[in-house]
Amino acid sequence: MSAHQSEQVDRANARALRLLYDAEPVLVDVRPAIEVIPGMTKDTVLTSGPPLHWDAYTGGQRTAILGGVLHEGLASSTAEAERLLSREAVRVAGCHDFGAVGSLAGVTTASMPVLVVEDAGSGNRGYCTLFEGAAPARLNYGVYDASVQQNLEYLASVIGPALGAAVRLLDGGIPLRPIMARALRQGDELHSRNTAASALFLQEILPGLFDLGADLAREVVAYLTSGDYFFLRPSMAAAKAMADRMYGAEGSSVVTAMAFSCAEFGIRVAGLGPRWFRGPLPEVEHARFFPGHDLGDMEIMGGESLITEVCGLGAFAQAAAFTLQNYQGKPEVMVRRNLEMYRITAGEHEVFKIPFLEYRGTPAGIDVRKVVATGVTPALDVGIAGKGGGQIGAGSFRAPLQPFADACAALDQLN
Amino acid sequence: MSAHQSEQVDRANARALRLLYDAEPVLVDVRPAIEVIPGMTKDTVLTSGPPLHWDAYTGGQRTAILGGVLHEGLASSTAEAERLLSREAVRVAGCHDFGAVGSLAGVTTASMPVLVVEDAGSGNRGYCTLFEGAAPARLNYGVYDASVQQNLEYLASVIGPALGAAVRLLDGGIPLRPIMARALRQGDELHSRNTAASALFLQEILPGLFDLGADLAREVVAYLTSGDYFFLRPSMAAAKAMADRMYGAEGSSVVTAMAFSCAEFGIRVAGLGPRWFRGPLPEVEHARFFPGHDLGDMEIMGGESLITEVCGLGAFAQAAAFTLQNYQGKPEVMVRRNLEMYRITAGEHEVFKIPFLEYRGTPAGIDVRKVVATGVTPALDVGIAGKGGGQIGAGSFRAPLQPFADACAALDQLN
Repeated sequence: MSAHQSEQVDRANARALRLLYDAEPVLVDVRPAIEVIPGMTKDTVLTSGPPLHWDAYTGGQRTAILGGVLHEGLASSTAEAERLLSREAVRVAGCHDFGAVGSLAGVTTASMPVLVVEDAGSGNRGYCTLFEGAAPARLNYGVYDASVQQNLEYLASVIGPALGAAVRLLDGGIPLRPIMARALRQGDELHSRNTAASALFLQEILPGLFDLGADLAREVVAYLTSGDYFFLRPSMAAAKAMADRMYGAEGSSVVTAMAFSCAEFGIRVAGLGPRWFRGPLPEVEHARFFPGHDLGDMEIMGGESLITEVCGLGAFAQAAAFTLQNYQGKPEVMVRRNLEMYRITAGEHEVFKIPFLEYRGTPAGIDVRKVVATGVTPALDVGIAGKGGGQIGAGSFRAPLQPFADACAALDQLN
Repeated sequence: MSAHQSEQVDRANARALRLLYDAEPVLVDVRPAIEVIPGMTKDTVLTSGPPLHWDAYTGGQRTAILGGVLHEGLASSTAEAERLLSREAVRVAGCHDFGAVGSLAGVTTASMPVLVVEDAGSGNRGYCTLFEGAAPARLNYGVYDASVQQNLEYLASVIGPALGAAVRLLDGGIPLRPIMARALRQGDELHSRNTAASALFLQEILPGLFDLGADLAREVVAYLTSGDYFFLRPSMAAAKAMADRMYGAEGSSVVTAMAFSCAEFGIRVAGLGPRWFRGPLPEVEHARFFPGHDLGDMEIMGGESLITEVCGLGAFAQAAAFTLQNYQGKPEVMVRRNLEMYRITAGEHEVFKIPFLEYRGTPAGIDVRKVVATGVTPALDVGIAGKGGGQIGAGSFRAPLQPFADACAALDQLN
């Protein structure tokens, strides 16, 4: 790339960052996926990562996809679900191609309530399913059984409709960016820690909840305050709506998506459209496993919550969340890792700031050129699933270099 | 003091710390002061600091005491209130002598609703009035006018009774220590910053609020979420109930109270009972003033929120609250100041911990001997009042050495 071309990319990246910084994600509704996600059908199952052929999904992600088919009542047995998927009577597709993002396996089906987050300026929408609650057995962690099915039905019949009704009662919905900016001042990094943001969200939705009546309101509050993890999903949907704005910056080398399936990690780049650049799975840099588990029990079953890192959150804001030290390393390690991310980003976020770094903006806008030049790949704050399903820990991972190198080469060819 | 005597004091301090660490403050009620504070009468005005003769109260603290007399309807004019106070028809007394603690001027009168915090083990009770809300004109900041009076009436007629009813509906009240421990992980130090704790408190009281009906519940939520400062008062009352346990440790050199009036700073020590050791007012170490104000506008009008520092909070937990950097100095300064406090404390808190310091317990139990030996006096996170009333800033102050030296000498005489 010539100096002239390089300057052009710099300018495009500045445009991408401006789009990112000016995003104003607002939770406007909670509705069944089929009612709000364009292109969604009864016989579609969305899942995490650069899409694969059905045969390539294994382990927990495969279990979750099959569970999605059963949950929708498209099949009455796993064997039947397998047959429908094999002959493509049920379609498996990537969340990102539908404006959605999935947590872990990320299975999203027609009847599941999704958070609808709209960017005020662009009208972009990001969708994400609801936190399944504190129960250890969850579809997104690769488990499908009677308790998971019952919980999904509860979310669809009680929690989703109540949240939707409350949000619609609040004029203009719930602006999420102020919650996110505040949560960074209260120890969240909005990927592996969402404790403060969940509490702030509760405060915002509360006036709407009161109108639903005491019993239902109490039930929704119990759901929202269980597990301190509710806000991860609004954070993800908001990040999707924000990140997608950057596709408007033609020629930019800034990353617009990172995601993985059970088999591959992939990125998208603003100047290269919806094309996935694929590579091997991320590797563990530092992790902690729940009692009775170790690295040998780990199974990667997909994940798209890395959309938060794309927006300067998660591992890019680790120094805001020292309570994660057991999972990610001592505070000094977290600070060092956070500072390292400035080496591979095009800017510093104007709204998301880190108190410990004297309110320096988070490193924002991963530049594939800088990743290749430094050999430093993005750090990723992720939850860890176990073989056989369920969460067994959490940690800080590293993305592979290959997709960034390939994207860089593709950008070179473009110029 | 001989080596033998010194060891005896060490053992007494260990007992004091055990009492402190094992405290379990619970908000059990919110009631008018006269109904719950032993010894309170219609014609008593409690105020901050080692008590002075009425003549000695000046400026905002004097204004607030007069305001208290008017608010209670004991006089119909300021002149009449002055007369009643001069001939002691209305009694002025120190909050601490009634189990109470006051914010800034700390005026507490018979009809004012107070938080009733009870220590589960000892039955000790700590009392504190309610946060007056986000309005700039507040009695505790030395202002008394029609708007202040109206707000006090609103607190007494609507907010206090509603909070009391909600707390009583919750079986066993609201345990405050878990909220405080969690808030330290969310960027609060529970003196100058109470944002997270206020949100956590809201979550705990919510089930009780729902039973009050939607309209009243909505009103209480609006109050609880205005200004992010509600929880300072529960924090103070809890600290009072916790600190008072330490009087049980005979011979201990650990501080059980720090407080100041408009004229004097004072401390109490576990082994020396209710006697105040008095000295000059604290001095500003680092402060920030709101636009249009500077150090020359500052007026000290009392304050007992330093009871939080007595319990290892506030300035003793600055490294938990980097968002206060504008008021207290850069993060590295805050960390250094926080670490310095370990030089003058007898222990490290077993429950209150600081994530950035790798979950080290906060420095707890100020040992007057160590203060004298090092010349390091306690740092204090305080709000700053302006001449003529109202808040004009906040900062980190330093206690004077004299009272610690005097207490140390008194302990020596005891031994």
